[in-house]
Amino acid sequence: MSDLPKRVRIREVGPREGFQFEKGAISLADKVSLVDALSDTGVGTIEFTSFVSPKWVPQMADAEQVVAGIRRAPGVAYEAIWLNEAGLERAARLRDVLALRPMFSVAASDTFMRKNTNCSVEERLAELPGWAERYRALGMDWLDVGVMAAFGCNYEGDVEPRRVVTVLQQVEQRAQACGARLGGIGLADTMGWANPLEVKRLVGAVRERWPEARLKLHLHDTRALAIANAVAALELGVDCFDSAVAGMGGCPFAAHKGAAGNVTTEDLVFLCQELGIATGIDLDRMIAAGQLAERVVGHPLPGKLKSGGNLATYRATSRAART
Amino acid sequence: MSDLPKRVRIREVGPREGFQFEKGAISLADKVSLVDALSDTGVGTIEFTSFVSPKWVPQMADAEQVVAGIRRAPGVAYEAIWLNEAGLERAARLRDVLALRPMFSVAASDTFMRKNTNCSVEERLAELPGWAERYRALGMDWLDVGVMAAFGCNYEGDVEPRRVVTVLQQVEQRAQACGARLGGIGLADTMGWANPLEVKRLVGAVRERWPEARLKLHLHDTRALAIANAVAALELGVDCFDSAVAGMGGCPFAAHKGAAGNVTTEDLVFLCQELGIATGIDLDRMIAAGQLAERVVGHPLPGKLKSGGNLATYRATSRAART
Repeated sequence: MSDLPKRVRIREVGPREGFQFEKGAISLADKVSLVDALSDTGVGTIEFTSFVSPKWVPQMADAEQVVAGIRRAPGVAYEAIWLNEAGLERAARLRDVLALRPMFSVAASDTFMRKNTNCSVEERLAELPGWAERYRALGMDWLDVGVMAAFGCNYEGDVEPRRVVTVLQQVEQRAQACGARLGGIGLADTMGWANPLEVKRLVGAVRERWPEARLKLHLHDTRALAIANAVAALELGVDCFDSAVAGMGGCPFAAHKGAAGNVTTEDLVFLCQELGIATGIDLDRMIAAGQLAERVVGHPLPGKLKSGGNLATYRATSRAART
Repeated sequence: MSDLPKRVRIREVGPREGFQFEKGAISLADKVSLVDALSDTGVGTIEFTSFVSPKWVPQMADAEQVVAGIRRAPGVAYEAIWLNEAGLERAARLRDVLALRPMFSVAASDTFMRKNTNCSVEERLAELPGWAERYRALGMDWLDVGVMAAFGCNYEGDVEPRRVVTVLQQVEQRAQACGARLGGIGLADTMGWANPLEVKRLVGAVRERWPEARLKLHLHDTRALAIANAVAALELGVDCFDSAVAGMGGCPFAAHKGAAGNVTTEDLVFLCQELGIATGIDLDRMIAAGQLAERVVGHPLPGKLKSGGNLATYRATSRAART
């Protein structure tokens, strides 16, 4: 495991992924309290809301109020997402608070693209110049590309690495054609198809073509392999991961209700702690934030550390008992 | 990952680990139905009850009735555990049904040994000749040794591999002194202290000293790393694992109630399927057994596949859709 990175950057996406998934209403105060608790953990980025139509995602109708309500901690980037021009305009009006990123997401599966976003991959690619133009107007001349369903798709089956590389090449060509460059590359295991061997294959294939690009993995724990997949990525030196406190969120495309969503932040931080990899995150505070998340949503969430406890605490207690 | 075994042997321990952990009463019929469902999965071994004092473990008071009630499937070894001579005598009376194994368990932590078994490690080792004698009388001239808390202990902290090797050497010396040999070696992460690096260190240290011994890992998912730890062991060719259907069981020594117990059988079988490792287990049937286990205990259990679903099903559907 000699290629383990010394330091890993974790992007907390729990509030953004999680709240939209809840059936019951979550109060503005509860949303703000969770983001504030996360702000005190040492995490560098918190993706905490979406500027989307309240008609489709009623849980995110209060996005502006959440932005206005949170306490801004020094050194934390507060991020949000948008799916169309109207959403970006709403976010851009709040750019004194929000860290805007020039996101462009596309799926490696046409069927998933249609189910999730109501357009084909080709139609999405045709939208690229418009996005590049809008981002340029906001001072950003690159695109951070996220590839959804990068390992497999419940509708189309396994996704071969060469398909992901092809999609990324198409994005790069269209970006260059309108004067934008390819920024970071995010690979999302949206429906839980990855395994450690496939993580190594895909990361290897993308690295071979774009050796300098910053890779980010977005892993779902739908089928219990998310932490093992993170280990496989860490072994290749991947140093940026999305994760969700307490394992908030879920997967609307799974076979049965109750399927797990994103890899759990505190479990991933614990993994890094045990492997000697710095995250800058205070694990005890992240565990407390996970316990708060569970109280806020009002039902059990899948993360393990919030019940298992931090080994650092046991180590300190057992040392004290020996002396 | 070139040392991945071609085939892995999974020992199902859910009924034995899980039922004793439940607060509510589980009916005899429900216990039998779960064992019968497991018998149809293709799993080779089912450890399904304990011959222990009903005073301490009331949930196991019906051990004899469960043994009498189950349907015996060809090719399945039905195992049970015991902690003292009276328990072994009860099991031995049923040896036309039960597969007896000459178990000898000891902890790598003295404090854990006392908390769990009410004796010191030295006292346990002093009992060895008596166990060897009893097993010999039953026709078994070896000892299968299980080391509990082999990676760490909530009371004593991290456990170094050399401590495990020392305990195993003590067992071997005492066994040889009374004419018994060391059989299989089980390494149990009883309280969830292992991580992939430590799995490789400990397996390496034990292999170096006993290159021919069959190793078995017993991994708990207290802190979310059980599947990643299994991957680390598989990468070293370890080919025998305990696991519990649906993730039944728990850990009475964890910081908070609700901590996870054994690695989940169907999740481990899925991992093997995705890595191309044979288990002989029908994953869909094991998922169905996991769903049954959840109905029997009447509350959610931690396994993921029972909600996430088997990718083989999605692959078949997406292939059919393409043709």
